[in-house]
Amino acid sequence: MKNKIYDGIYTKGPNQQTDSFIVDFAQQQADSEIVPFYLWETLAHNYMLMKQKIVPEKAAKKILKELIYHSENIEKNGFIVDPLIGDVHENFENLLIKSIGDIAGWMHVARSRNDQITTDQKLITKKLLFDLYGQIFNLAKVLEKKVYKYKNVVMPGFTHFRVAMPSSFGFWWQSYLQQIIECEEILKSVFLTTDISSLGAGASYGVNWPIDPKMTANDLGFDKPMINALFALNSRGIHESYVLGPLCSLSVVLSRMMEDIIYFSSAEINFIFVDESFTTGSSIMPQKMNAVVAERTRSKAAKILGNYITTLISLKGTPSGYNMDSAETKTSIIESLKIFIDTINIVAQMLETISPNTAAMGNAVAPSLATKLADCLSQDYQIPFRKTHQIVGKVLQQIDKDISKISSEKLEKIIMEIVGKKITLPKGYLQNILDSENALSQYYYKGSPNPTYVEKVNAELSIQNQQFLNWFKKEQEKFYDAKKNLVSKVKKYLKEK
Amino acid sequence: MKNKIYDGIYTKGPNQQTDSFIVDFAQQQADSEIVPFYLWETLAHNYMLMKQKIVPEKAAKKILKELIYHSENIEKNGFIVDPLIGDVHENFENLLIKSIGDIAGWMHVARSRNDQITTDQKLITKKLLFDLYGQIFNLAKVLEKKVYKYKNVVMPGFTHFRVAMPSSFGFWWQSYLQQIIECEEILKSVFLTTDISSLGAGASYGVNWPIDPKMTANDLGFDKPMINALFALNSRGIHESYVLGPLCSLSVVLSRMMEDIIYFSSAEINFIFVDESFTTGSSIMPQKMNAVVAERTRSKAAKILGNYITTLISLKGTPSGYNMDSAETKTSIIESLKIFIDTINIVAQMLETISPNTAAMGNAVAPSLATKLADCLSQDYQIPFRKTHQIVGKVLQQIDKDISKISSEKLEKIIMEIVGKKITLPKGYLQNILDSENALSQYYYKGSPNPTYVEKVNAELSIQNQQFLNWFKKEQEKFYDAKKNLVSKVKKYLKEK
Amino acid sequence: MKNKIYDGIYTKGPNQQTDSFIVDFAQQQADSEIVPFYLWETLAHNYMLMKQKIVPEKAAKKILKELIYHSENIEKNGFIVDPLIGDVHENFENLLIKSIGDIAGWMHVARSRNDQITTDQKLITKKLLFDLYGQIFNLAKVLEKKVYKYKNVVMPGFTHFRVAMPSSFGFWWQSYLQQIIECEEILKSVFLTTDISSLGAGASYGVNWPIDPKMTANDLGFDKPMINALFALNSRGIHESYVLGPLCSLSVVLSRMMEDIIYFSSAEINFIFVDESFTTGSSIMPQKMNAVVAERTRSKAAKILGNYITTLISLKGTPSGYNMDSAETKTSIIESLKIFIDTINIVAQMLETISPNTAAMGNAVAPSLATKLADCLSQDYQIPFRKTHQIVGKVLQQIDKDISKISSEKLEKIIMEIVGKKITLPKGYLQNILDSENALSQYYYKGSPNPTYVEKVNAELSIQNQQFLNWFKKEQEKFYDAKKNLVSKVKKYLKEK
Amino acid sequence: MKNKIYDGIYTKGPNQQTDSFIVDFAQQQADSEIVPFYLWETLAHNYMLMKQKIVPEKAAKKILKELIYHSENIEKNGFIVDPLIGDVHENFENLLIKSIGDIAGWMHVARSRNDQITTDQKLITKKLLFDLYGQIFNLAKVLEKKVYKYKNVVMPGFTHFRVAMPSSFGFWWQSYLQQIIECEEILKSVFLTTDISSLGAGASYGVNWPIDPKMTANDLGFDKPMINALFALNSRGIHESYVLGPLCSLSVVLSRMMEDIIYFSSAEINFIFVDESFTTGSSIMPQKMNAVVAERTRSKAAKILGNYITTLISLKGTPSGYNMDSAETKTSIIESLKIFIDTINIVAQMLETISPNTAAMGNAVAPSLATKLADCLSQDYQIPFRKTHQIVGKVLQQIDKDISKISSEKLEKIIMEIVGKKITLPKGYLQNILDSENALSQYYYKGSPNPTYVEKVNAELSIQNQQFLNWFKKEQEKFYDAKKNLVSKVKKYLKEK
Repeated sequence: MKNKIYDGIYTKGPNQQTDSFIVDFAQQQADSEIVPFYLWETLAHNYMLMKQKIVPEKAAKKILKELIYHSENIEKNGFIVDPLIGDVHENFENLLIKSIGDIAGWMHVARSRNDQITTDQKLITKKLLFDLYGQIFNLAKVLEKKVYKYKNVVMPGFTHFRVAMPSSFGFWWQSYLQQIIECEEILKSVFLTTDISSLGAGASYGVNWPIDPKMTANDLGFDKPMINALFALNSRGIHESYVLGPLCSLSVVLSRMMEDIIYFSSAEINFIFVDESFTTGSSIMPQKMNAVVAERTRSKAAKILGNYITTLISLKGTPSGYNMDSAETKTSIIESLKIFIDTINIVAQMLETISPNTAAMGNAVAPSLATKLADCLSQDYQIPFRKTHQIVGKVLQQIDKDISKISSEKLEKIIMEIVGKKITLPKGYLQNILDSENALSQYYYKGSPNPTYVEKVNAELSIQNQQFLNWFKKEQEKFYDAKKNLVSKVKKYLKEK
Repeated sequence: MKNKIYDGIYTKGPNQQTDSFIVDFAQQQADSEIVPFYLWETLAHNYMLMKQKIVPEKAAKKILKELIYHSENIEKNGFIVDPLIGDVHENFENLLIKSIGDIAGWMHVARSRNDQITTDQKLITKKLLFDLYGQIFNLAKVLEKKVYKYKNVVMPGFTHFRVAMPSSFGFWWQSYLQQIIECEEILKSVFLTTDISSLGAGASYGVNWPIDPKMTANDLGFDKPMINALFALNSRGIHESYVLGPLCSLSVVLSRMMEDIIYFSSAEINFIFVDESFTTGSSIMPQKMNAVVAERTRSKAAKILGNYITTLISLKGTPSGYNMDSAETKTSIIESLKIFIDTINIVAQMLETISPNTAAMGNAVAPSLATKLADCLSQDYQIPFRKTHQIVGKVLQQIDKDISKISSEKLEKIIMEIVGKKITLPKGYLQNILDSENALSQYYYKGSPNPTYVEKVNAELSIQNQQFLNWFKKEQEKFYDAKKNLVSKVKKYLKEK
Repeated sequence: MKNKIYDGIYTKGPNQQTDSFIVDFAQQQADSEIVPFYLWETLAHNYMLMKQKIVPEKAAKKILKELIYHSENIEKNGFIVDPLIGDVHENFENLLIKSIGDIAGWMHVARSRNDQITTDQKLITKKLLFDLYGQIFNLAKVLEKKVYKYKNVVMPGFTHFRVAMPSSFGFWWQSYLQQIIECEEILKSVFLTTDISSLGAGASYGVNWPIDPKMTANDLGFDKPMINALFALNSRGIHESYVLGPLCSLSVVLSRMMEDIIYFSSAEINFIFVDESFTTGSSIMPQKMNAVVAERTRSKAAKILGNYITTLISLKGTPSGYNMDSAETKTSIIESLKIFIDTINIVAQMLETISPNTAAMGNAVAPSLATKLADCLSQDYQIPFRKTHQIVGKVLQQIDKDISKISSEKLEKIIMEIVGKKITLPKGYLQNILDSENALSQYYYKGSPNPTYVEKVNAELSIQNQQFLNWFKKEQEKFYDAKKNLVSKVKKYLKEK
Repeated sequence: MKNKIYDGIYTKGPNQQTDSFIVDFAQQQADSEIVPFYLWETLAHNYMLMKQKIVPEKAAKKILKELIYHSENIEKNGFIVDPLIGDVHENFENLLIKSIGDIAGWMHVARSRNDQITTDQKLITKKLLFDLYGQIFNLAKVLEKKVYKYKNVVMPGFTHFRVAMPSSFGFWWQSYLQQIIECEEILKSVFLTTDISSLGAGASYGVNWPIDPKMTANDLGFDKPMINALFALNSRGIHESYVLGPLCSLSVVLSRMMEDIIYFSSAEINFIFVDESFTTGSSIMPQKMNAVVAERTRSKAAKILGNYITTLISLKGTPSGYNMDSAETKTSIIESLKIFIDTINIVAQMLETISPNTAAMGNAVAPSLATKLADCLSQDYQIPFRKTHQIVGKVLQQIDKDISKISSEKLEKIIMEIVGKKITLPKGYLQNILDSENALSQYYYKGSPNPTYVEKVNAELSIQNQQFLNWFKKEQEKFYDAKKNLVSKVKKYLKEK
């Protein structure tokens, strides 16, 4: 169709199907979400054009007025991008030409859709990251409380999904808390690559106008402007991959936590209770309450990894300079962040409701005390650990692997057999070792499930979480303030003139 | 929220956020597209229930009447699934209860949402596959014509993106044609696993009613019913992966074809022309006409591979029996097939417009004749090929790698140096060999770029394409007829009673 | 380094690091495994050259003699490719030149390393596929026996890892058996694309000699020769993806089966016993016997999917004609097939040893009978199923979700509350329904866990498995016979001359 | 087989095939590379055991002596892990028991193979990361020099692989330099999660001995010890993914750079020269010199992404606590880092040799000046940019899109047509604008290809690269010093006693 912003060289222009292929359903969705950021960025650009005297004052004023009007209007009513007109930019340039005439043809000077969309994509990514940071902070807060509350609740620790060593319910929570806190660090470090304005990069090689990329970067709340135009556009998708990478890892962490929750809350294991508000029933089986929130969360790893792959493969092997292939990175990053925000939000609520079945946990601890027995024999009788390991193993073999059937006689006999030592175990020796009550106190250092140390670690992690909050709140404020300030400046200018 | 179809056991029911987390935006989109297939499947199920006398006649009649009404209504007006009511099934059971009361409570007997959605997913997959088959057939048809038209147009063949051996433009087209034809075969073979009804599988272990899965399979146009309920549901996602796999491969084939087209149509290579209707311009650079349809197509490989990964990872390591994780497979397969249908459609149109710049192609052929020279020297003077290869290489090294600078003297000198043979090349010997005009005729067997053989192969591929058309048209007819027949049967029954 | 087979045009040649970068450790491993297939293919090519009189008789004879010698020698002693000499071909051409002199320079005429390696890759793929087919057939055989043996052992069926409906241990096995059988079909259909010789494709555009690709295809046991040289080489990696795709799916199926086995064999669930020969213990915990074979198998899905991604991404967006990028496809396909062969082999052995804990399974069935109760109430009292579902749900809610606490009075009261019907349940009504003994007989159709039908389905699957065996044994024979025949022909020729 | 370190509870032990399935070829390779780190870690652990008086002095001394002996021996001779004995630990415990008897049974006390291998994996990852850091620093150094050298060489900038705007060869290099520098930052930030000792985590829940994880962390050069045992082991693979993620991104960046190089160095584009030492020739085509180092590098993105996927999928959905599935993460991280080190190394060497064909680049610039013309018309005649864009487009359409055919008359006519303005262009107006010589000076700000700014940016990037070097050199020293110090301490202790 003709009537494109670039139709000078064209005889007939792209056909209609090309338009809807380029801005397909997913692109249209993404573009519509980008609208507020597009308007902010366009306002910043045009304010700079005015300041730099690139655009005649009269034109600048009209354009800025229109942009303010649309920003406010769209905040209320939203805006759906029409693919037949084109992408978000074509939609708006078209709109302005309709309302203020050819003079609107100045609004796009010294800017390409390439640096524009890359900048807009960064703005929406920052916005969504702030939302995500808030959710992650909250999630960590929930876990922190759980650790504190359940640090004394004895629970068998599993390896290979077989009972391994005594642990606590609080310790289990803390293992996930630390993963979250660590991921906060990673997500903080990748923020830097998102916090760069691409305006001024033009098509990929800058523009022939005396623009001021620093001014626009500042008015858009960015930390700094781009310093190599080609890099600024080649890095589209790469910067997104830096954000998506840690989300892939985190989604896998969540998949494991959900796996634990689904199994632990089953009738067969019966270690924990999940509130029914996070389950749904069956259309056919009246007894069912399925942990569907946990299941859907477990599968998010699949979606996020898929989007990560999409992002990077779309760039693989493409020549440098802007290519349309990179449009895939826009939909992937927006979709992924939104999924994550919603997921973390509901997961935190669900975790809040989880409580332990302390009786069931306590009963299941027994087999995990075999290692302690081997340790004690080694400590108390100076037998090399490999030998006491063998001794306890051999005893278990002879009593159906059921540690509750152990007796001092049996044990003494096997010790004799294996290390040739005649030992008489004191009365109560075995009972004391195999008592799950004091299992946690017999860990002696930080990092173990001993509640004293678990509490200390919790305090450290809590501080880190708080620091993360402080950091991102400040960044978030800078972001929203930049917009407010720009709008005030423009309004003041419009009033004055 | 209460008022769920399964709320007997619940005190308060899932909270609202759980509902919108489970049926999120993507699920809602997919469910809305599934509606017509859900209604067909529900009609088949309820007709069977009536026939098997599982449901009281009065109830069956009312339900069937409602279903016919909604089917027809929705064909006209569409239907958007409301996530707060639930999935597609919950939406409709709710609708029917509102209009015909508690008697609608029979419509879901002897069926679970698990076997239902798996069946619906297969129906929509079949529908989309038929659309895709049509597009692929057309694409092959376009390529076939190109091969025929351009089999005599000499063009340099590239390896490692360096000129390699003489080829033809038709031969280049044919290499893609054969990939498409082969992929048709693969896509035909995986159809079998899509062509099985899951109805009767219930939640994953069948139902305690005397249903007739063969009857419903037949009324839904499937080749056969499931024969192990647990398999029928465990295979959800696996069957989808069988379809997505070949699409991944095909998307990579397309990415390579588009790569060729983007480079060949650049001003620098200038081998082919692509019509401007499949390009878009730049908002900033007046001279630009970018091959964006080719670029977007090149990036589809990223999207399809991402979806494939999502599909399989969502199942990885989940326990057997239905799990909510498998919901990811629904959105992935529907989105992927729709993308592919649109892509193949526009690609075929674009390819149709491509024409060669025969002059530029011809000029570029020269360097590719070096191999022929080594071959001829070996043939004509009985020198081992490794030696003539070395001879020609050495000559090229001495003439700036520019074969046009070669002379008989030079060549004879190097032959002497390397194999110690004094040879006098006949007059015109070199000219004859290095004449690109007859480059194609000096290939002697089927599979080479010799136009005679290219044409023969084209005839074979054309037959295969036609057989593919015949096959899928028959399957498609069976599919649509099944629906028509079912509706007639039900209407006839409703009239009679 | 100089002294390359292509060094005519070079001044100094590639440096040594380039050589070891190109043929890195993984490539070297793969090339060394390819040696026997390279020799077979080279024998076939040189025999054809002789027959077509392309090579002087004397040279042909010497080369063929050397190749026979090396084939036999290498079968005994193996051969390690030296990356500093180059790839497998460069190693052997070098070897022959050393032993028979420059005349060996004829052995590579009318062939490129491109068509050569693609052909060799297909030969080794076919060989490994036959081995895999054998393992898969055996695995299916093991499953088949298990189904037959355990079809009457009642076991709770799970969905969402919560007890769902009554099932049988045999039915569980059969769900996996059917997945395997179906995958056999898919793997059979993709064999076709592997069964094509690429010889004659040359660098990607054929060769200027009167070769006979049909003859070599035949002597290599292929179904047919390539028919478009460019396709033959562009499809490298695509054909491999057709094989790897179903392996990805199958590896995910195995990951789910292993997940079931790990959980079912845990002390907490305790449904099945896995023989200790497939477990390993802990270096620290004496009580441990971890199901490591199952765990390692579960993780193979990760490896195979990774290799699949590698295969396709390596091709994405590369220009047509041979590129070195495709070397990644060689290592991926060989590694993946070998992993699969070993995995299926040990998995089949492990599964063989698995036996059920029938008591534990039986005890766990009770909650799964709630659906049957809702079904029976609906059947016997003509209450819409949605209402009986609600009734049973409500009862369960009031008795701590423990179906064993149900009483006729309770149930009658709730029926009255919900549907306003006064019903008196006959004596023994509940006991009869809730008796897990006859749970399986109350499924009435093929596809359900009813043992009669399970047995019927088993017979069908067994026939399919047998047909698969028959098919691939025939293909395998054709493959090995081709080699034997070629060697005889060559030896006969060498004797005669 | 019996005679395992854990065989107490076993009747017969794992069978031999289980052993070779668990420690397969890839695991064996990885374990053999891990040996030196295993010995270091075991030395640190046993020194701590001695210090904490956990092991009897006599035993400690003998064990430490043996470990010192083996460390030194293996540094010289290497060590191949025997899978039939087991993993790296089983091999060494076995070795020590053979040489010093049962007293070696103390060496594994208070440690599990789980925390051990996780620690070893971190040690080898750190070692390989330091090597990688060195290579990346060098690569950046090479790029930096290229930028400086070629900042004034005018070259057309491409978008969509069509000539876009004037750029410089130095600017092109710098776009990649900045990507590398940025990736350094990311790789630095993820180092933190690699720099944590897992010793003390035991099987996943700590050990019942008074160990000192801080001491071992220190003796192994780690920044800190783990603080939650379960986290320490659950994070295996997650921490690796933090490292692999940026490598995926970087590999895609390299794939794009190689794509540029392959195309730019083709005879058709002919912009750059790559030294023949980084090419290989063809076995069949004498004229070929293929950029195989670039091609193999382009395909590494496929391999690294495959390994990333493998790493994360192997963990997806597994229960918390150590599982054998995580063994996949070991082979993936080691292989990926080694590939990267080799790749960056050879790539840097190849890039060093690249030089521009300034004439060809200059000739190709012309079409890129169309934007400047539209800009100038807008600037000089106060016409809205959208209109001047249209004007220039229209002119190009009428002169076969060949800007060299433009004339003032033509342009003036179109201006009149489109904006109705009569304009007379001054003499030399067009020539001046379309002169490619001064194209770079007409960019006016930092971030554009203006050589003055390019040089400034280069200085900034150079400083960042230097800071990266300083940082990692310090970390590397700390790492190697820790080992030296530990060995001295142990030797001193052995002497004293």
